[in-house]
Amino acid sequence: MAAAFPEIEKIRYEGPKSKNPLAFRWYNPDEVIEGKTMAEHLRFSVVYWHTFRGTGSDPFGPGTMLRPWDDGSESVENAIRRVKVAFEFIEKLGAPFYAFHDRDVAPEGATLRESHKNFDAVAKVLKDEQDRTGIKLLWGTANLFSNPRFMHGAATSSHADVFAYGAAQVKKCLEVTKALGGENYVFWGGREGYQNLLNTDLKRELDHLAKFFHMAVDYAKKIGFTGQFLIEPKPKEPTKHQYDSDAAACLNFLRSYDLLPYFKLNLETNHATLAGHTMMHELEYAGMQGALGSIDANTGDLLLGWDTDQFPTNLYLTTECMLAILKWGGMGAGGVNFDAKVRRESFEPIDLFYAHIGGMDAFARGLKIAAEMRADGEFTKFVKDRYSTWDSGIGAEIESGKATFETLEAYMLEKGEISPHKSGRQEMLENLFNRYF
Amino acid sequence: MAAAFPEIEKIRYEGPKSKNPLAFRWYNPDEVIEGKTMAEHLRFSVVYWHTFRGTGSDPFGPGTMLRPWDDGSESVENAIRRVKVAFEFIEKLGAPFYAFHDRDVAPEGATLRESHKNFDAVAKVLKDEQDRTGIKLLWGTANLFSNPRFMHGAATSSHADVFAYGAAQVKKCLEVTKALGGENYVFWGGREGYQNLLNTDLKRELDHLAKFFHMAVDYAKKIGFTGQFLIEPKPKEPTKHQYDSDAAACLNFLRSYDLLPYFKLNLETNHATLAGHTMMHELEYAGMQGALGSIDANTGDLLLGWDTDQFPTNLYLTTECMLAILKWGGMGAGGVNFDAKVRRESFEPIDLFYAHIGGMDAFARGLKIAAEMRADGEFTKFVKDRYSTWDSGIGAEIESGKATFETLEAYMLEKGEISPHKSGRQEMLENLFNRYF
Amino acid sequence: MAAAFPEIEKIRYEGPKSKNPLAFRWYNPDEVIEGKTMAEHLRFSVVYWHTFRGTGSDPFGPGTMLRPWDDGSESVENAIRRVKVAFEFIEKLGAPFYAFHDRDVAPEGATLRESHKNFDAVAKVLKDEQDRTGIKLLWGTANLFSNPRFMHGAATSSHADVFAYGAAQVKKCLEVTKALGGENYVFWGGREGYQNLLNTDLKRELDHLAKFFHMAVDYAKKIGFTGQFLIEPKPKEPTKHQYDSDAAACLNFLRSYDLLPYFKLNLETNHATLAGHTMMHELEYAGMQGALGSIDANTGDLLLGWDTDQFPTNLYLTTECMLAILKWGGMGAGGVNFDAKVRRESFEPIDLFYAHIGGMDAFARGLKIAAEMRADGEFTKFVKDRYSTWDSGIGAEIESGKATFETLEAYMLEKGEISPHKSGRQEMLENLFNRYF
Amino acid sequence: MAAAFPEIEKIRYEGPKSKNPLAFRWYNPDEVIEGKTMAEHLRFSVVYWHTFRGTGSDPFGPGTMLRPWDDGSESVENAIRRVKVAFEFIEKLGAPFYAFHDRDVAPEGATLRESHKNFDAVAKVLKDEQDRTGIKLLWGTANLFSNPRFMHGAATSSHADVFAYGAAQVKKCLEVTKALGGENYVFWGGREGYQNLLNTDLKRELDHLAKFFHMAVDYAKKIGFTGQFLIEPKPKEPTKHQYDSDAAACLNFLRSYDLLPYFKLNLETNHATLAGHTMMHELEYAGMQGALGSIDANTGDLLLGWDTDQFPTNLYLTTECMLAILKWGGMGAGGVNFDAKVRRESFEPIDLFYAHIGGMDAFARGLKIAAEMRADGEFTKFVKDRYSTWDSGIGAEIESGKATFETLEAYMLEKGEISPHKSGRQEMLENLFNRYF
Ligand SMILES: [Co+2]
Ligand SMILES: [Co+2]
Ligand SMILES: [Co+2]
Ligand SMILES: [Co+2]
Ligand SMILES: [Co+2]
Ligand SMILES: [Co+2]
Ligand SMILES: [Co+2]
Ligand SMILES: [Co+2]
Repeated sequence: MAAAFPEIEKIRYEGPKSKNPLAFRWYNPDEVIEGKTMAEHLRFSVVYWHTFRGTGSDPFGPGTMLRPWDDGSESVENAIRRVKVAFEFIEKLGAPFYAFHDRDVAPEGATLRESHKNFDAVAKVLKDEQDRTGIKLLWGTANLFSNPRFMHGAATSSHADVFAYGAAQVKKCLEVTKALGGENYVFWGGREGYQNLLNTDLKRELDHLAKFFHMAVDYAKKIGFTGQFLIEPKPKEPTKHQYDSDAAACLNFLRSYDLLPYFKLNLETNHATLAGHTMMHELEYAGMQGALGSIDANTGDLLLGWDTDQFPTNLYLTTECMLAILKWGGMGAGGVNFDAKVRRESFEPIDLFYAHIGGMDAFARGLKIAAEMRADGEFTKFVKDRYSTWDSGIGAEIESGKATFETLEAYMLEKGEISPHKSGRQEMLENLFNRYF
Repeated sequence: MAAAFPEIEKIRYEGPKSKNPLAFRWYNPDEVIEGKTMAEHLRFSVVYWHTFRGTGSDPFGPGTMLRPWDDGSESVENAIRRVKVAFEFIEKLGAPFYAFHDRDVAPEGATLRESHKNFDAVAKVLKDEQDRTGIKLLWGTANLFSNPRFMHGAATSSHADVFAYGAAQVKKCLEVTKALGGENYVFWGGREGYQNLLNTDLKRELDHLAKFFHMAVDYAKKIGFTGQFLIEPKPKEPTKHQYDSDAAACLNFLRSYDLLPYFKLNLETNHATLAGHTMMHELEYAGMQGALGSIDANTGDLLLGWDTDQFPTNLYLTTECMLAILKWGGMGAGGVNFDAKVRRESFEPIDLFYAHIGGMDAFARGLKIAAEMRADGEFTKFVKDRYSTWDSGIGAEIESGKATFETLEAYMLEKGEISPHKSGRQEMLENLFNRYF
Repeated sequence: MAAAFPEIEKIRYEGPKSKNPLAFRWYNPDEVIEGKTMAEHLRFSVVYWHTFRGTGSDPFGPGTMLRPWDDGSESVENAIRRVKVAFEFIEKLGAPFYAFHDRDVAPEGATLRESHKNFDAVAKVLKDEQDRTGIKLLWGTANLFSNPRFMHGAATSSHADVFAYGAAQVKKCLEVTKALGGENYVFWGGREGYQNLLNTDLKRELDHLAKFFHMAVDYAKKIGFTGQFLIEPKPKEPTKHQYDSDAAACLNFLRSYDLLPYFKLNLETNHATLAGHTMMHELEYAGMQGALGSIDANTGDLLLGWDTDQFPTNLYLTTECMLAILKWGGMGAGGVNFDAKVRRESFEPIDLFYAHIGGMDAFARGLKIAAEMRADGEFTKFVKDRYSTWDSGIGAEIESGKATFETLEAYMLEKGEISPHKSGRQEMLENLFNRYF
Repeated sequence: MAAAFPEIEKIRYEGPKSKNPLAFRWYNPDEVIEGKTMAEHLRFSVVYWHTFRGTGSDPFGPGTMLRPWDDGSESVENAIRRVKVAFEFIEKLGAPFYAFHDRDVAPEGATLRESHKNFDAVAKVLKDEQDRTGIKLLWGTANLFSNPRFMHGAATSSHADVFAYGAAQVKKCLEVTKALGGENYVFWGGREGYQNLLNTDLKRELDHLAKFFHMAVDYAKKIGFTGQFLIEPKPKEPTKHQYDSDAAACLNFLRSYDLLPYFKLNLETNHATLAGHTMMHELEYAGMQGALGSIDANTGDLLLGWDTDQFPTNLYLTTECMLAILKWGGMGAGGVNFDAKVRRESFEPIDLFYAHIGGMDAFARGLKIAAEMRADGEFTKFVKDRYSTWDSGIGAEIESGKATFETLEAYMLEKGEISPHKSGRQEMLENLFNRYF
């Protein structure tokens, strides 16, 4: 098979002065930061769905993408050809990981059995390509949202058959993910929610969702799949409301149904902002709850109200992400997964390279800046000082559990008023942040 | 003391045909619906802060309200005069409850001790007026957000003294709430959050917040306060992010810190929508989590981005609220508390009557419509039918815990595809909803 | 050809007590309101695109709709079969109008010439069906947004060929609209805008857009098309920014380029709210600018950020629409066009009937309530009184042009302060509004 | 009078390597860029209202700011003391301009006459300080929104007296602005709009607003004030809807009432985003309409729904602003006016310095980057090439006015389909943008 990108050579690191749009200016995989290489910190992953299956369609028009290697058919042959193009792309790009949905890589068949068979056939080629290139699977997941059978939800469908169908699909996908050495398994519940409450039994649906996750945990144990389970929060779109709306909603659900030990979160920037949170908030929140698993690296447009899934290039964003990730000790088995798509108007194959190079460079630069900030320690010191009243005296008594409402009232009646406050210095800190750019 | 509203007599129920703007058209307190009177269902409560302390100021201009009984001073005398006006108002309106913050009813003193003293002096008059009129206290709460000492938070302040001050204030407010027979105690953490993450230790702040709540629970036990503790979610404003951002965030926090048994939620419409949820969603979610405590009845403007706290008159909204409340068995010790303010341009005292009458009528009508829908049973039956596949066969096997991924895969491989779906019928249900108006 | 909806008879008016979901409860076409029949006021129109071409696809999944009469092919035969179903539907529903895009009714061909030919072939059948049933064309429009050739815009494309293509398409569509007696011609510029400013020459694009509209005006004159030209504002989606973002932006554009005499606006509820306005605002604004042409009747979900195009059932909304429309003297050649689609989960043919019946009833009821409010005159009187200082004295001097800054300063220096204000009475007015429901 | 900021010396340029938080790293006033100094390009202006009158109050709490020079009284003496502090601050900061509302600089009196007198007394000191320091007045404006008399609007009030009062106030403020050599005069219509449409006569209000502006134009002519009139758009807050909602709404209003020749726009970032637009959009739009007058430099938080008026530090934002400003030939008499306030928690005087230094550096850096991009010409060239089909052939025919629908249809029938498109290259351009940071 001829190369799909014959004119592109392996993308190389050329340093900040390079003007080559097909080179890295910041991502230098072997450069060591805080004792680990950039590659180890960032664990970049290319997504199969947007990058190899995205057509450029939107609600007002069909696809636009030029993909000469793809004949548009839903055949296994076409799927296998696509796998080879994908690995050529990922290898030339130099990303160590990829991620897929079952239905991205292999066509759905006329029956479940046929779908399983198709999936097996393509998985074999994925395995071969992984072995050939050393590229690894960051995570697998099952698409339980596209097919009309999932219109009312999958695990939360009003129709029990759909739960069963979803269970069968996840079972298979867990097996394949295990076979391919996948390091995580992700659930994104795009249709797990409701369009309106008038026809919905919310509690019954959530009870079902918990049952589904417990079955997944049980089955993973049974087959010895030791990858990390991840839930990916998103508040809405396609549904009016998705049950996994943000980090807090996911964690409350997991706690309610005794699932917390088995799951972490896969946080996405555009989903955070659709839920009204900054990505840094979601990272900090998940981090402090011990649930920071992985990230879907992209960006949205805060003036638009849907998931634009754009490639992340904003250096403030990537620096904030890396600050939070470094602070909470990294993402373990997770990675920086580009759940992002080229614009409908960026329809040429080379745009895929530009997009990924820009995203990787933006994260590499964010990592370097974050590490520099941490080495300087000015932010850390500021925060430490800001909370210093908690390190001794009344603060320490509260933290240690000695204080009660009565001892605190006595303390304050005696004192009459608090000792003076210090400024929060937001503007100074924002200026300091800019000093690193 | 002369009457503040001499021209207003007790507001009476005159029925739907009345054109008297100072009469109820729907709220008929003794009318029995589903075995309880309207008064028992709705437990209307007037809030002290907006109704007796609201000035009509906004970020672009000072107050506008004409309140001839209020000399504007921060004296105990003025505060006591205000209490009498408040009870005249509530009595004429016919609301059975009221709610307050400590600093609404009594002026803050130069020291904490003086503030306590002022609060005691006014509480005595509140007690007298309660006894005289039979009006009861729905809940008390401490204002831990207005005074500049709370600029960095209260329980989550970077400054330990502020935690102590807040503790002393809540201790006192619990005592007063108990003395006044308050049926609940509410926490709204207006400043418990952050303005930016660069200067914030999020985990340490949340650990402190949990300590604070545990101390409150312990102290309530100690003094025998048996009212219900409630947290009121709100996502933002005045902070960039409030920790108690929505029902799910509150419940995850409560679960994380072993506080769930002691708390329920006080849900507010305008806070729900600022968090991106419908009020009905928050009610259903809290209901199914066993945490539906009370509601702050108001409405926002979804095209504006701040808490407009308007009086609720939308009958779709009030019907949805009452549907959820009836479904989950009512609000127990909670009530329908009008956390709402007249517009800055509605500056005459009589506007307070129009506003509350409109809100009470809207909820009374919502209650009647909801009860009628429930009696007809069309919505209930639709939902029951929609989930009927879960009542036997594979659905029942899943619900009973007999199914596993393996049995479900076997079932679906055999079946090949799900049995056909039924329409969700959203449009038909929306039309049916309109039939009740 | 067999009936597509054999089980459905002509939808009849049965009055408010009817519980028949396939009858009108409020829409009684011959009932006279303010001197015109309901049918004349409302001029209901069914849209071809959502109702006969909508598949139920969304960005996360393909279509779901059951349309047994449609073989899914892009053939003229299929298109003609669809026309017959459409007229059966519209006739049974009792809507007097319909509206289409060129590409909805007839398939695009391999060349422009072939597309023209297809369009002619189908237009002939449309004409026959119009003649047979008496159903009329409210408006035609050309789809200049779906085909990938329009990815960078149509009249505002960076590529001049696309302008030419769009011109050819609009020319043809004007001819067909004229031939079918269409009463208006609409422009919705879904791709006329930009995705980002870095690659966009905004001024050059707007200059081109104005040229395009001038050519359309010239050509209409030439062929004697006397229907009303309408622009339909929308702020975003599919683009980041659409040039025709709201009523004010459209009118400023029209004024800037000397196009105002030839155009009015077709306002859509969901587009108004995406632009941050209420529909009533857009109607009032267009009305007072003499530019209220027609409405696309639907509703959005203000907690979601995209164009959900739901059927309108909210009676507050429909009453506000009809108040504004009656106030500004109706819509002339325009109508109430249901640019709305059944939900993806409402996939059965009968859902199309439920949806339209609900929308028509909601507007009929809104019309009746609005007329009742106008007959009572309480709102009108309130507003008249509120502005009474403008009817004489200093107000009249200002309005008549006699006053200057100097005379006004003299007046106010003399007076020292304004005479007292009156309350805006928003709450009382909202209660009064509810009295009509 | 003792210095208010004794510990602060004149802020100096120390270059990018400086770690001094009280020095400029980028703003080097005499550095020449594109033939003008930075000072000439940027024309920085300090606002009187936020910086010298801001208290740190918000809707949930009173002021927090430490301002030892201000005794809190509404006396002329206090006002004059404040003027001296202001000029000490502006001089030490090195900003060449300032801007004020009448009521910021001088206290409102018991009557209009007394207010005029107060204003004159303070204006004299402003003049002296301007002369002493060389600091100039960028613009004056009248506060027609804070006083309760403006609750229903000023020029658009339902009460004619208020129009007269506002006229008198603007007359005086024009006189003072002229006397102080103000280079512009600004209208921000904070209360010119409505809270609800039920009590509003929108057309009558807009007719009044136009009269008001015409009177202002006439009076300026009469007294020989030759400064530029500017309108500052904002969509909402404090009102539900402000008539001057965005650039397009302002310009349509100006065109409708024959006011366009006399006005330009003062665009504010946070107002642009509240209206759903990027600041760059508003700048480009105003630029291409010949109406770009000045900017209120700040930033908002797109996840919050109110005007946070934060100091701008985002370099993407400042670069985009400067790209648009340079492209449209600068702002003429306008400037970069920091309509921004320190956070409520940044309550120390020194925070004012940090805030302004950060904002000035961010704009200086944005200017340098924008100039570098323009010098390199890569963006310009890309855009030029993207539209190259318009420079000859069919494109040139369209632009020159030779083409008609008929010639274009003929062209396209002949050609059959457009020649192939080029990618919009958004990702490549975003990467290129990042290369400059
Ligand atoms: Co994702
Ligand atoms: Co996404
Ligand atoms: Co509340
Ligand atoms: Co509120
Ligand atoms: Co439309
Ligand atoms: Co629409
Ligand atoms: Co401003
Ligand atoms: Co502002």
